[in-house]
Amino acid sequence: MRLFAALFVTAAIAGSISAEEKRHDEAQKPLVLASQGSFFVGGESKTINSPGRGPGAPVVPGEVTINQMYVQYQIPPTGPRHVPVVMVHGCCLSSKTWETTPDGRMGWNEYFVRKNRSVYLADQVSRARSGFDASKITAVKAGTLPASELPNILSATHQTAWTIFRFGPSFNQPFPDEQFPVDAVDELYKQMIPDLNSTLPTPNPTWKGMAALAVQLKGAVLMGHSESGFFPEQAALVDPGGIKANISVEMPCPALTSAQISTLAKIPTLIIFGDHLTDVPGVWGSAFDTCQKFVEQMKAAGSDVEMMHLPKLGIKGNSHMLMQDRNNLQIADLILAWIDKHVEPGKNAQSK
Amino acid sequence: MRLFAALFVTAAIAGSISAEEKRHDEAQKPLVLASQGSFFVGGESKTINSPGRGPGAPVVPGEVTINQMYVQYQIPPTGPRHVPVVMVHGCCLSSKTWETTPDGRMGWNEYFVRKNRSVYLADQVSRARSGFDASKITAVKAGTLPASELPNILSATHQTAWTIFRFGPSFNQPFPDEQFPVDAVDELYKQMIPDLNSTLPTPNPTWKGMAALAVQLKGAVLMGHSESGFFPEQAALVDPGGIKANISVEMPCPALTSAQISTLAKIPTLIIFGDHLTDVPGVWGSAFDTCQKFVEQMKAAGSDVEMMHLPKLGIKGNSHMLMQDRNNLQIADLILAWIDKHVEPGKNAQSK
Repeated sequence: MRLFAALFVTAAIAGSISAEEKRHDEAQKPLVLASQGSFFVGGESKTINSPGRGPGAPVVPGEVTINQMYVQYQIPPTGPRHVPVVMVHGCCLSSKTWETTPDGRMGWNEYFVRKNRSVYLADQVSRARSGFDASKITAVKAGTLPASELPNILSATHQTAWTIFRFGPSFNQPFPDEQFPVDAVDELYKQMIPDLNSTLPTPNPTWKGMAALAVQLKGAVLMGHSESGFFPEQAALVDPGGIKANISVEMPCPALTSAQISTLAKIPTLIIFGDHLTDVPGVWGSAFDTCQKFVEQMKAAGSDVEMMHLPKLGIKGNSHMLMQDRNNLQIADLILAWIDKHVEPGKNAQSK
Repeated sequence: MRLFAALFVTAAIAGSISAEEKRHDEAQKPLVLASQGSFFVGGESKTINSPGRGPGAPVVPGEVTINQMYVQYQIPPTGPRHVPVVMVHGCCLSSKTWETTPDGRMGWNEYFVRKNRSVYLADQVSRARSGFDASKITAVKAGTLPASELPNILSATHQTAWTIFRFGPSFNQPFPDEQFPVDAVDELYKQMIPDLNSTLPTPNPTWKGMAALAVQLKGAVLMGHSESGFFPEQAALVDPGGIKANISVEMPCPALTSAQISTLAKIPTLIIFGDHLTDVPGVWGSAFDTCQKFVEQMKAAGSDVEMMHLPKLGIKGNSHMLMQDRNNLQIADLILAWIDKHVEPGKNAQSK
C-alpha cells in the first residue's frame, strides 16, 4: 500500500514536471510575429506655462498633450483569427509587469502570443511611457500654487510590497510554499515606479482608453491587475461596445448599482485570486469577500461569471504577482482555456 | 539633351522608389525572433518617508529603488553572431522614439532586428518605465522642504517641438521638402512626456547604465539622440570596456580634454545631422559646429570617426526626428552599412 502511494506521488510529480517542461520547451522555440508596434489611445491638449531647464530659463507658454495612453502590441500569424487580449498593470508598476519575470522567465505577454492571442500592453495614463500632467508641480515651483496642491505621489516601498504582494507574513520572510521567486525580489523592486494616478480626472482616462481600444480592435478581452483589477469593468461601464470579456486579477470589487450590474452581466467575466489572502496584514480577505459578493450579484443577473480562487483548484502558494510567480504559465494556461471556452466557444485558439 | 535629362531623372526616381518598395516589402514579412524580453540595469536603494494615498493616510518609512534603467530587447535568429545596438531616446521622449512612427510605419527598432542586429531600447533613468525619484516632491508636499527645492520638470510644448525638431520655420508651417510626416504630428506630441533629468545625480546614471549594459552584452554599439546624443561618448568616458562603436544623432558636442579625446578616439564613431540646421531659430547651427570641431579633434587623435551630414549626401529635408522621417529606413540602411564596415569589417550582418 505504501509502495503504491509512493508510485502514485512519483507519477503525479512526473506529470507535473512534464507539463512545465513542455511549456519551457515551447518557450525556447523562435517567436514568429505577423506584426508588432506601438501607438497611443486618447489624449488631449492642455495650455501650460512651461519653465525651461536651468537657472533663469524663460517661461514659454504653449500646449502639451496629456491623458494619452501608450499601447505596445504583438500579433502572431494566427492572431487576426482570434479576439486579442489587452493587459493593464497595477499600482506603482508599468507594463513591465507582463514581460520577463524578475528571475528571467517568460512573461504572460509573450506566452499569450505564442498561444495565438494578439496582446496589447497599455501603460496606465499618468505612468511610464504614457506620461503625466506635471503642471501642478511646475506651478508650485513657480509660486503660483501652494505646496498643498502638489499631487499625492505613491511610492510603494520594498517593505510595503513584500506583505501587500503576499511574499510572506513579514518583510523578507517568505511563506514556505511561496510561488513568487523571492530570490529575485530586487528585480521586482526595480519595476516599482512613482504612481501619479491622483493627478487624473474623473472618470480615469485609462478606463476610457481601454474601452476605446476595445472598440478600435473590433473586440477585445480586457485584463487588469490590482489597482487596475476592476478597470475592465470600469471600462465596460464607460462603453461596453468592444468588450468581449473581462478578466480581473486580485483587487477589491466596489459596490455597484443594479443598472451597472446589468450592463456588466452581459460580458463573460473571470475573477482570479491567489493564495494566503488572510495570512498577511491588509485588505486581501475583505477584497476577496467583496468580489464574492460581486460574483453573486452577477450570477443573479444571469452573467457568465467565474471566481477562480487558485487554492480551491489545488494550486497553492500564489502571490499577488501571480503573472510573475514560478507557476505563471500554468495560470496563463487556465486563463487561455477560459477565454477559449467563454469568448470563442467552438474556436480553440491554442490549436491555431 | 532635355529628353536625356528627363529620362535620367525618371530613372533616378524609379530607382529610389524601387529601394523604398523593397524596404516596404521586407517589412510585410513575418518577424522571426530568437528571443525577446526586458530587464533593468543598475539601481540603488533609498530610504524615504512615503505618504499613503488619500487624505489622512499614514506616512510609512522604507526603501525604494531609484536610478535603475529599463531595457527592452529583441534578438533575431542571427543576432548572436553580431554586435548588438543599444538605442537611447532624447528629451521629453521615451523608447517609443524608435518604435512605430507617428504615421504608422516601421521604426528603427524592428528594422535593425530584421537586418540581423539585436536591439536594446533603454528608457533613460528618471523617464518612462525607468521611473524617477519622487522624494523631493513628496517632501515639499509634506512641508519638510521649500517649494524652491522642487525639480525643474521640462515639458516641451507643441510650439517648441515644431521648430526645435525642425518641421518648419514657424509653428504649423512645414518646410516644402520636409521629411517628417507632419500630418501625423499629433501622434508625436503624444510621445512627449515630462522630463525629470534635473533630479539625477552626477554622473548621470544613464551613462553608467549604458556603459554597464555594453559590458554585460560583451560588446555593443551605443546610439543616442538629441538630449542623449552624446550619452554614448559619456558612457565611454565612464567605462569604454564594452563599447564597440558610438553613434551620436543630432546634439551639441561638449568641449573635451585631450585625455578624454584620447579615450574616445579608440572607438569608431559616427555623428549624424539632418537638414535645415540654420533654417530655424535655436541651437542647431552652433551644435553642428561644435561637433565638426569634435570630429577634427578625434581625427587628429587618429580616430575612425565620420560626420554624416545628410544634405551633403544629397538626402534633403530631414528633421531632428530623422528616425521617424518618411525616409527613416533609408537612413537606417546608411547606419547599418556603417556598422558593418567599421565595427565588423569582413562580416556583413545584412547577409546574415
